[in-house]
Amino acid sequence: MDEAQKPMQVIKIGLLGLGTVGASVIRILQKNKVAIEKKCGCSFEVIIACARDLEKARDCSLDGLILTTDPLEVVRHPEVEVVVELIGGTTIALEVLIEAIEKSKHVVTANKAVIALHGNELIGTAKRYDIFLGFEAAIAGSIPVVKTLRESLVGNSISKVVGIVNGTCNFMLSGMSESGCSFGTILKEAQTLGYAEADPSFDVDGIDAGHKLAILASLAFGGAIQFEKVSIDGIREILVDDLVYADALGYKVKHLALAIKSVSGIELRVHPTLIPKGHVLANIDGVLNAVLIDAEETGPLLLSGAGAGGDATASSVISDLVSLAAKSSQKQNIQRAEFQAKSDLSSEVNVLPIENISSAYYLRIQALDKPGVLAEISQNLASSEVSIEAIRQQESHGDDGSVPIIIITRKITEAAIANACKHIGNSDNVCGDIVRYRVESP
Amino acid sequence: MDEAQKPMQVIKIGLLGLGTVGASVIRILQKNKVAIEKKCGCSFEVIIACARDLEKARDCSLDGLILTTDPLEVVRHPEVEVVVELIGGTTIALEVLIEAIEKSKHVVTANKAVIALHGNELIGTAKRYDIFLGFEAAIAGSIPVVKTLRESLVGNSISKVVGIVNGTCNFMLSGMSESGCSFGTILKEAQTLGYAEADPSFDVDGIDAGHKLAILASLAFGGAIQFEKVSIDGIREILVDDLVYADALGYKVKHLALAIKSVSGIELRVHPTLIPKGHVLANIDGVLNAVLIDAEETGPLLLSGAGAGGDATASSVISDLVSLAAKSSQKQNIQRAEFQAKSDLSSEVNVLPIENISSAYYLRIQALDKPGVLAEISQNLASSEVSIEAIRQQESHGDDGSVPIIIITRKITEAAIANACKHIGNSDNVCGDIVRYRVESP
Repeated sequence: MDEAQKPMQVIKIGLLGLGTVGASVIRILQKNKVAIEKKCGCSFEVIIACARDLEKARDCSLDGLILTTDPLEVVRHPEVEVVVELIGGTTIALEVLIEAIEKSKHVVTANKAVIALHGNELIGTAKRYDIFLGFEAAIAGSIPVVKTLRESLVGNSISKVVGIVNGTCNFMLSGMSESGCSFGTILKEAQTLGYAEADPSFDVDGIDAGHKLAILASLAFGGAIQFEKVSIDGIREILVDDLVYADALGYKVKHLALAIKSVSGIELRVHPTLIPKGHVLANIDGVLNAVLIDAEETGPLLLSGAGAGGDATASSVISDLVSLAAKSSQKQNIQRAEFQAKSDLSSEVNVLPIENISSAYYLRIQALDKPGVLAEISQNLASSEVSIEAIRQQESHGDDGSVPIIIITRKITEAAIANACKHIGNSDNVCGDIVRYRVESP
Repeated sequence: MDEAQKPMQVIKIGLLGLGTVGASVIRILQKNKVAIEKKCGCSFEVIIACARDLEKARDCSLDGLILTTDPLEVVRHPEVEVVVELIGGTTIALEVLIEAIEKSKHVVTANKAVIALHGNELIGTAKRYDIFLGFEAAIAGSIPVVKTLRESLVGNSISKVVGIVNGTCNFMLSGMSESGCSFGTILKEAQTLGYAEADPSFDVDGIDAGHKLAILASLAFGGAIQFEKVSIDGIREILVDDLVYADALGYKVKHLALAIKSVSGIELRVHPTLIPKGHVLANIDGVLNAVLIDAEETGPLLLSGAGAGGDATASSVISDLVSLAAKSSQKQNIQRAEFQAKSDLSSEVNVLPIENISSAYYLRIQALDKPGVLAEISQNLASSEVSIEAIRQQESHGDDGSVPIIIITRKITEAAIANACKHIGNSDNVCGDIVRYRVESP
């Protein structure tokens, strides 16, 4: 009964990937070894790691580790009990995760893409083999949102999960807003600072946020992960002018991922959104992430913190390792560790088509600066049943003598606003495409 | 291996207390029964409950429950596997918790006082009997701060936990600030709304926040719970004028609980604090709670949400029930569920004496409105080595012709500022006590 008499259990880890996060995992496990052992009653040891380039200098000590370039050597090492996958992507990562699970090794991953695209298969396989599959690190860096949804709020009726879950987009929108510099300029800055990839499309086009949203929605509402049903818009088209006009109207522009439950189904959407400046998410700036979870029983719960970075992500990897250790015993492999694995992933919660979803809209219409144009636009909106909340004609003239007209509408369906914009766009007095973003207070 | 083949495990609960939280626990377990079973793979059933008055109408169905006025009957009921203690206080509650643990029944409590004052004994006993002791609901209502500290951040070096953890104090300060009404007026409003007790001293004098802080510090830094070492100031003496003067200087006044680690030990203190308006905690208003956890690896992590209320607290009770279910198996009672139980509660982390702690201060000095007084006060501060950041003489005259002088100092120890205030107070030009609050940006 007295744990002190037993030798301390050592949980042996195979690490796939020695990049920033991998190095942080090793470093933190070494640095905080004594404290972790004291708190958890067991020890964690990375015994083998793989990386593409074994010569590269790493920001951690690799003493005593077996190093290899072959991921499968890590998975197949007989002493490895847990595989930590930090390779990313959905090809090799998927292959090694499946092999690890089929070898009855527990797995912890920071890979949102593989969970978003293959999570149903992975979770199903993990359930069959009765092993632990942790992916706290896949969403919002250090923020314990997976554990909170899976364990803390498991008894609640969750109505809404709204997040700023992509640090690159948030950094860029904050940067554009603060500096007045264009998307392109801030993108270069983000790339220099390591906040954006050389090819930033995954982040700035909203795919990454879409991956995370699909996972969050499955955790919050049950059922399968349905990434393919997420409606996704990125931030590439946003002008500094839009941020300025929004500001004047009392809004900040944030790239939000929203999963909202209604009687008829769930909304799954990722898009730039104008939110009131006083809203709690309006003040989450830079590379910070935040997730707002609204449940009938608790009201809104906000979690915010570092959404990326080696140590912050490693913190969530270690959180999963500790959960795994807490849930595994020396005698028996695993208990009822995976709540989510119990819910029926083969069932699909109905995702509402984006056309049916209502919200208020911000419209930027480039129109000729002559009498009657504003009246014409207003009339076109009215005949499409779009009510106007605010309308402003801006001063700045385009090369063609046109001016931007900014409109905030009342709540209307996506189908109706799309139709109205088509009408307005047909006018000879309107130049170019009409830009529209949703306006919400989630 | 296939869970669907097994009959679903029913975890039988004995409930102590049928007040707001108790009724919410029953109601939520009934209302969300199917979803909880689906997510957790087991069922929760309250089979017996005790209350002082069995005739009183409750906001939940009591069908099929055994009802009693004797808490020990609940604890001793042979089928009860988990005792949920919602009685509060430290007399009967302690007795029944100890008896439950000694009968090898798991316990879940929302009682911060009993954990703050007797937690070391309770956790130690729970450890000996190898049972689960959950107290997520004891701190900050629905916010999963216990789980986050115990499990999610367990691998990290936490440097700071700062919270707004008493909804009554926060409601009152927000109310005084918004309405300009006095402490007494807002207290009556809080009492009418059910946000303050008939005897509010426990909340407004900071005892409740002190209890929570002592528990948070033990979770964050390890070692025993040391409530007796917490330095506590309440909000009773705060004037609306203080809030107005603070506002003019760019601050909001919040009642903070702070646990801060340094090389020489930890600071444990609860007091009204001026924090910059832009600080994330400055915008936590009304009955909301928030906890900011700073760790070396993650940077600041903010959790905020409903700090009180039946359903919000019940949500955390159910979270503990689910954690317990996840950690117990049909075959074996408990694995390594209690991380905290593993840390050495007999050891005490060194708590720094409040006299040694440094911060900036807000001083309100009531002084005669005549030439030379400001110079005298400045001179007295200078001779006590207190540097001044800002000084403002207010317009409003007291009955005695005195005016308030508001000073923001630079960082200085509590001992030094106390000494300086004594000096200043000795002057014939100064009337009454000098009021001082800390100014921080935690």
